[in-house]
Amino acid sequence: MLRTTGRYDAFKSQWHSSYSDPPTMWPVPNHQFWDSDIGKWIEGACYLLMDHFDEDIDAAVKELVQMIRSAQHPDGYLNIHYSVVEPGRRFTNLRDMHELYNAGHLIEGALAHRLYYKNDDMLSPMLKYVDLLVATFGDQPFQIPGYPGHPEIELALLRLYKVTGNEKHLKLAQSFIEERGNPTGGTERRHYYDVESESRGENKRTLPVYFPAARSYWYQQAHVPIAEQETIEGHSVRAMYLLTAVADLVRVSQRDSKVGATFLPVVNRLWSNMVERRSYVTGGIGAIKQWEGFGIDYFLPQGTDEGGCYAETCAAIGVMMLAERQLQIELDSHYADVMEVCLYNAVLTGMSLDGKAFTYVNQLASSDKDISQRHEWFECACCPPNVTRTLGYLGGYVWSHSTNEEKAVVNVNLYTAATLRLQVSKSVIELTQKTDWPWNGDVYFNICMEGPPVDLQLRLRVPGWAVSWQMTPSPKQLDIRKGYIYLGAEWLQQNSQFQLSFPMQPRVVRPHPLTTQPVGYVTRGPIVYCVEDADHPWEEHHFKMTIFDPKVPLREEARSQPDQYVAIIAENGAKGELNMSPWDRQIVSEGNNGNVGERKNLCFVPYYLRANRGGRGQMRVGLRVE
Amino acid sequence: MLRTTGRYDAFKSQWHSSYSDPPTMWPVPNHQFWDSDIGKWIEGACYLLMDHFDEDIDAAVKELVQMIRSAQHPDGYLNIHYSVVEPGRRFTNLRDMHELYNAGHLIEGALAHRLYYKNDDMLSPMLKYVDLLVATFGDQPFQIPGYPGHPEIELALLRLYKVTGNEKHLKLAQSFIEERGNPTGGTERRHYYDVESESRGENKRTLPVYFPAARSYWYQQAHVPIAEQETIEGHSVRAMYLLTAVADLVRVSQRDSKVGATFLPVVNRLWSNMVERRSYVTGGIGAIKQWEGFGIDYFLPQGTDEGGCYAETCAAIGVMMLAERQLQIELDSHYADVMEVCLYNAVLTGMSLDGKAFTYVNQLASSDKDISQRHEWFECACCPPNVTRTLGYLGGYVWSHSTNEEKAVVNVNLYTAATLRLQVSKSVIELTQKTDWPWNGDVYFNICMEGPPVDLQLRLRVPGWAVSWQMTPSPKQLDIRKGYIYLGAEWLQQNSQFQLSFPMQPRVVRPHPLTTQPVGYVTRGPIVYCVEDADHPWEEHHFKMTIFDPKVPLREEARSQPDQYVAIIAENGAKGELNMSPWDRQIVSEGNNGNVGERKNLCFVPYYLRANRGGRGQMRVGLRVE
Repeated sequence: MLRTTGRYDAFKSQWHSSYSDPPTMWPVPNHQFWDSDIGKWIEGACYLLMDHFDEDIDAAVKELVQMIRSAQHPDGYLNIHYSVVEPGRRFTNLRDMHELYNAGHLIEGALAHRLYYKNDDMLSPMLKYVDLLVATFGDQPFQIPGYPGHPEIELALLRLYKVTGNEKHLKLAQSFIEERGNPTGGTERRHYYDVESESRGENKRTLPVYFPAARSYWYQQAHVPIAEQETIEGHSVRAMYLLTAVADLVRVSQRDSKVGATFLPVVNRLWSNMVERRSYVTGGIGAIKQWEGFGIDYFLPQGTDEGGCYAETCAAIGVMMLAERQLQIELDSHYADVMEVCLYNAVLTGMSLDGKAFTYVNQLASSDKDISQRHEWFECACCPPNVTRTLGYLGGYVWSHSTNEEKAVVNVNLYTAATLRLQVSKSVIELTQKTDWPWNGDVYFNICMEGPPVDLQLRLRVPGWAVSWQMTPSPKQLDIRKGYIYLGAEWLQQNSQFQLSFPMQPRVVRPHPLTTQPVGYVTRGPIVYCVEDADHPWEEHHFKMTIFDPKVPLREEARSQPDQYVAIIAENGAKGELNMSPWDRQIVSEGNNGNVGERKNLCFVPYYLRANRGGRGQMRVGLRVE
Repeated sequence: MLRTTGRYDAFKSQWHSSYSDPPTMWPVPNHQFWDSDIGKWIEGACYLLMDHFDEDIDAAVKELVQMIRSAQHPDGYLNIHYSVVEPGRRFTNLRDMHELYNAGHLIEGALAHRLYYKNDDMLSPMLKYVDLLVATFGDQPFQIPGYPGHPEIELALLRLYKVTGNEKHLKLAQSFIEERGNPTGGTERRHYYDVESESRGENKRTLPVYFPAARSYWYQQAHVPIAEQETIEGHSVRAMYLLTAVADLVRVSQRDSKVGATFLPVVNRLWSNMVERRSYVTGGIGAIKQWEGFGIDYFLPQGTDEGGCYAETCAAIGVMMLAERQLQIELDSHYADVMEVCLYNAVLTGMSLDGKAFTYVNQLASSDKDISQRHEWFECACCPPNVTRTLGYLGGYVWSHSTNEEKAVVNVNLYTAATLRLQVSKSVIELTQKTDWPWNGDVYFNICMEGPPVDLQLRLRVPGWAVSWQMTPSPKQLDIRKGYIYLGAEWLQQNSQFQLSFPMQPRVVRPHPLTTQPVGYVTRGPIVYCVEDADHPWEEHHFKMTIFDPKVPLREEARSQPDQYVAIIAENGAKGELNMSPWDRQIVSEGNNGNVGERKNLCFVPYYLRANRGGRGQMRVGLRVE
């Protein structure tokens, strides 16, 4: 797709016919994200090459890196649009254009490239570009006091800092974060986006399509300084990328430093606001299409005909990124629970089983206007390569670890068949999980150590959905802190093999009562289920009228087509359809929400599996229970 | 208020300091509706003078009419803004400005003026203005092929036609209606608003604050021709005024003519869409603040913190106007039921008991952001004089009648203490209703006839909310058609006095299940009730967490302070508050919507009475029942 759409060759800095297309999301040119598509693809490719070498992929990465190097300006500048389409206009529209966002993804690509190729072919041009950015942005009179409309470079710079240790990289990220939303920024003592848009000669009533009103800077989380933000607002991907960087900045800084004291409470309160009031059962976020982001508290309709539901794939990836950073600040299974829900539901649903078709929006219910379907590609193709790099980086979500001379700590956040190999001083630790997760909650651990004994501490998450669980063998006294089982070196030396069991049963869970969603969701372990017309050929109203009886037994059915999964059958689970006749020609009625029609069987399948088995695209996650 | 704000003297065509204020609703100047405020006030004043002469009011009407006459241009043009603020720019922005809307209200004022004063002092300048409009608008090359952004003149012209019989008045109304939304209008064969905005040199991305996207002509019901509109959309006052005109056009035309065949189905389907899917229990319409109008089907949140609720007073008045026209086309109690609900709830709530404070927006629930309160006045003051003229015209809603040489038909749509006096040929019929409506459903009728016998037919509405009713004495065989009792001349001659009883009991009704509003509404007869903190000093969450037990007995309590009304007491009616703790730090939970806390008494008062008895502005109509 990168080749056929022109992206692959874009760093050759030649004109492409699509560059003159009218923008779909005015005023953002459609090709403006191409740099980031390449950056994300390189990042994902390098992660995956570590597991499985592929000659074509390897050659493509090398060729792309050569193109990127050749596209760089002598002063370090690197951007397709401002080199080919609008030369001379660089850094004049930080608010709407994605220059710094692109730079961030190229930096992340370069870091992955260095990890795999162990050379600086891609990192060195990026370091040169970062030097230019360091010189360009800041509070000196000769500098630009701005910050990116779409955060990303902040988190990339913090990842870069981890590798380079260069304080300038940390400081640039920090200044972008601290300056954001400053109403008295720069020498003009005004909001930077006001200054910038006036310089461009813009009428303040001329609105980007994603601004519902003039100066909707909350779209970019720049309405007030980050430290003053009370609720999570605006474009959900931007919000997640920004908070990921803020959380990482807190981690890098001393927690009791001014940075930590300022920003940790912000991250915590915006996270809580998001999880408790603005998240879907799948981990998806963002109800509103116009700004691809958050609505008001508890406004979580399932689909277009109910008022919205966006839940962009990239936004759920952003939640995983943020949760991963928060786990580094504070090991609490709550963060890993949300991360797991996102991974298996809102993120995985973004790609078809064959890896060839994608979703951008992930609604919880289809409608005649927006059926449940996948597409080969998108004009703004942020999601597909984002899924690639997320799956490539999966190990980074499954576990985290820290080591020093003779000590190692391993946190197991997610369970899956996997092996972690750690070098600690002169020893090697090999930690293996064997499991059929997410279909079976039994996980077998095996620890192998070569070399002198290492003081290993293992911390194992107890999922929030696990109503009961068992460990065999088990320490006499279990040490559990914030949802993690802590196992010490002594016990591990005597028990190099053990088993954790988190029985998975179908459950019916409910959204917060203030959502006023009268529905139940079928879940099992970390998997959220849906119903599709593929299993219910009689359905014609997107299951909107179907009344689910949550009291019928839910039977598990192991299936192997089109993939391994557990379906859940509710025999006679549909007790009928909504009886709406008392409201004919009425605004209100004494009639109650009784049902009409006969009982029918319901078959629930994992939400990520939707739109993989044919059908007419009728799908729903939450079925009406009252 | 007209005097202190500058409106009273505006037709003196002098500059007023407020004319340079920045628009609250850009690009509409705040003073732009002043002509209509005067027009509506004159209309209301003239109706009310008929019942009760007042020297000051009489003098003010006369002075205003003189000012209006002196403000008229030699060619008939008459408008404050385009005479004083933007001379030479008349008719250049039909889409956003309110020239023709103002003209409509001045025409309606002139008709009321003529009815009371029996002279043409106001009507004759308006006829001259209409002559100019007839010459200006149309499909000839030298004419403007446009139509007003805010309908009103159409219905005014049709009222005018009823008086003048001048076909030009009918034709102008009809052409405004038929041309509206034409995508290939005028000599340019394009949408008129596109042509017009290009002439003004506008950037199509420069959006009026009420346009969520470019070319949101559905805001003005001009996205497609009226005949093609499938759902009721946009600004709700505009929609009602437009449909009132369309219905009146159908009535004027032969029903089986092309006009009737084209437009009657439109009126019926948009009405149904509105009543069944987009109306609040109070008769209020319009959920969305940005465009002061309709949201999608069944999206009917109660207040700001739930996603909206606008329900403008003027819009509910518009529903009454439309219902009144529909009753003339087809006598069906369904239309009168909706008219009655609007009158006693969404409209009456717009004015305080002392007549000195008003509402514009009428939400069903308050929130910290929007408490339940009234204001002395508004910058856009459409609602207060609209209530005045509606109450002044009440008789027109209570009954309708038609007479010819020796026959009279009287339809009784609403019950209230009232007398109708009709001259039929050489006879006079006097029809009196005595009742304590809306607190008591007993209505005593008395018919007095002077002169030769008249063939009188009386049609009495049976309200849809009446679960039982009685007539004493009653014809042996009741002739009931579409919710009206038909009484013939013979029976009436023998029964000049009779009584109708529609017992009123408190009821709990529910919104359509697809609204997903888990609430019950307490009603009694035509009155919709609410709870206020004035009766519940303990309340601090706007009754959002309160769970109402609809099974407790509802006791009536007659009160006389601050006015006569029946309160409804539900002892121990609050069974507690929502239990939200199972959702702490969770997206979903197996917990059910159980309640916590103790039972408390609830006291329901009429919604129209809200914000009249002190308190902190906490109020809710629909209380949670599940």
